[in-house]
Amino acid sequence: MKYIFGVDLGGTTVKMGLFNENGEVLEKWEIPTIKANNGEKILPDIANSIKGKIAEKSLNTNDIIGVGIGAPGPIDSNGTIYGAPNLGWGVFNVSETLSSLTGLKVKTGNDANVAALGEMWMGGGKGYSSIVMVTLGTGVGGGVIIDGKIVAGAKGAGGEIGHIFTDENETECCGCGKKGCLEQYASATGVVRLAKRRLAKDDKASVLRGKDINCKVVWDAVKEGDEVAIEIAEEFGRILGKGLGIIACVVNPEAFVIGGGVSKAGTIILDYITDNFKNTTFRGCRETDFCLATLGNDAGIYGAAKLVIE
Amino acid sequence: MKYIFGVDLGGTTVKMGLFNENGEVLEKWEIPTIKANNGEKILPDIANSIKGKIAEKSLNTNDIIGVGIGAPGPIDSNGTIYGAPNLGWGVFNVSETLSSLTGLKVKTGNDANVAALGEMWMGGGKGYSSIVMVTLGTGVGGGVIIDGKIVAGAKGAGGEIGHIFTDENETECCGCGKKGCLEQYASATGVVRLAKRRLAKDDKASVLRGKDINCKVVWDAVKEGDEVAIEIAEEFGRILGKGLGIIACVVNPEAFVIGGGVSKAGTIILDYITDNFKNTTFRGCRETDFCLATLGNDAGIYGAAKLVIE
Repeated sequence: MKYIFGVDLGGTTVKMGLFNENGEVLEKWEIPTIKANNGEKILPDIANSIKGKIAEKSLNTNDIIGVGIGAPGPIDSNGTIYGAPNLGWGVFNVSETLSSLTGLKVKTGNDANVAALGEMWMGGGKGYSSIVMVTLGTGVGGGVIIDGKIVAGAKGAGGEIGHIFTDENETECCGCGKKGCLEQYASATGVVRLAKRRLAKDDKASVLRGKDINCKVVWDAVKEGDEVAIEIAEEFGRILGKGLGIIACVVNPEAFVIGGGVSKAGTIILDYITDNFKNTTFRGCRETDFCLATLGNDAGIYGAAKLVIE
Repeated sequence: MKYIFGVDLGGTTVKMGLFNENGEVLEKWEIPTIKANNGEKILPDIANSIKGKIAEKSLNTNDIIGVGIGAPGPIDSNGTIYGAPNLGWGVFNVSETLSSLTGLKVKTGNDANVAALGEMWMGGGKGYSSIVMVTLGTGVGGGVIIDGKIVAGAKGAGGEIGHIFTDENETECCGCGKKGCLEQYASATGVVRLAKRRLAKDDKASVLRGKDINCKVVWDAVKEGDEVAIEIAEEFGRILGKGLGIIACVVNPEAFVIGGGVSKAGTIILDYITDNFKNTTFRGCRETDFCLATLGNDAGIYGAAKLVIE
């Protein structure tokens, strides 16, 4: 049996998994992300944890295929990260550094892209080889996988779909400074923004009135049949469906895999997305499947492991 | 020396080229596209022309790497075409059919995608490995090349960027039935449409007034400094720049290569595109080069040849 380490480096914790080559996770654990001194301890801590696990399990290093790691920041296909302010990191080659610390082969990818690879391998996108994953969380992230490989992008910015332009008439600014980004409508905060905007428009009765609005509250109201909530869901679906239609015209994936906190509302969100997608997308690109992500917070370690054996 | 045939199948003529493996074209010729009886003679005619050239040149078939062909229609990476109404063709595998007719290895791609590959290999995109080619002709076509390979798409619809949604406020329909497609602004007919719309808006003096408006006339007026023509160019650049910004967020290419009839106006069109691109694109995806296509009508045969040796 051969082994792979999958590492998902986040701003607070580093999630780690020991996998076999069939994609089965044998063990999962976490270590804290120590960001002091521009994050200089992060990779040494990861290397030590890997070495500790190898010793603990008495693994033969010849049986270890390598280490995959997903990190927050733009990372190209050679493993160069173009700065990660969250970690205090500048520009350097993550794969080379971690490889020299561990003596193992290392592959690195952007965290959102790596999560997409994980979902394709063992999650909602299993069975496909070309998918676009759309992560609807605090922001909107994405990962483009073509023929089983991440489209990392020339400067590591492939799959930055949260900032594709989707609404000409937006008056408020996105965090990136532009107006009309997909993230302003389809993220968890975007859904809340749409809800507040709709509620302020008139006095139409709604179970949402008087409540502390969050994404879950909105989708629960949609499921109850609340008309105002349904209007909000339609606006969410109109813009996300249109945005995914644009992406479909560029890379024509087999499937979109929808994940992140917003997707916890379940398949109901797909109803609002797919109708709008079909209505607004060029016919040649319209036959695209939609599915929900299934790996949750583990997508990163799965995808990181898959990086090494792709 | 090894040889490759590059074939560019169009609705009226089939352009053909004999290449060596260094990408040098040794001979170019054309045969008519006979579309009678659902285009049943097209591939046999191509096969006969190839066999004739092999005999004429006394080539040893062991020295022929294969035949590449670009065809108008959605074509996946296995060579299956999903119908080509222009040719009378239904769904079948072009590579397998032409291979059985010639006894040679055959690779097939969509014509716009194949032209993009040609420009990357020997044209305006030479030296890059990840480009998006944008062909501004009667319509707007595109081709996405990642790490030297065409992104053909699940249903052969990769790079269908003429129909990405770019303007929320459009009132007229695109040929595809939707409103606000990139093609409605950035194609040769799109530029004429923008020009007529601008001229009808008011009576501001312009050298364009009273002229038969075509794309060349508009860009000539821009070069003369005509204020109304410059406004038209700015609207063209605003929408195309924004559209390419969206594409950059999806695949983050090294460069955009701009070709087609509209690009004959020269580098002046890049000025209008790149300023708008930089102003509206997410910062992580903004550092993208722009260049003009250089192979003109030969891009198809070059790209077809490259298909076989990629």
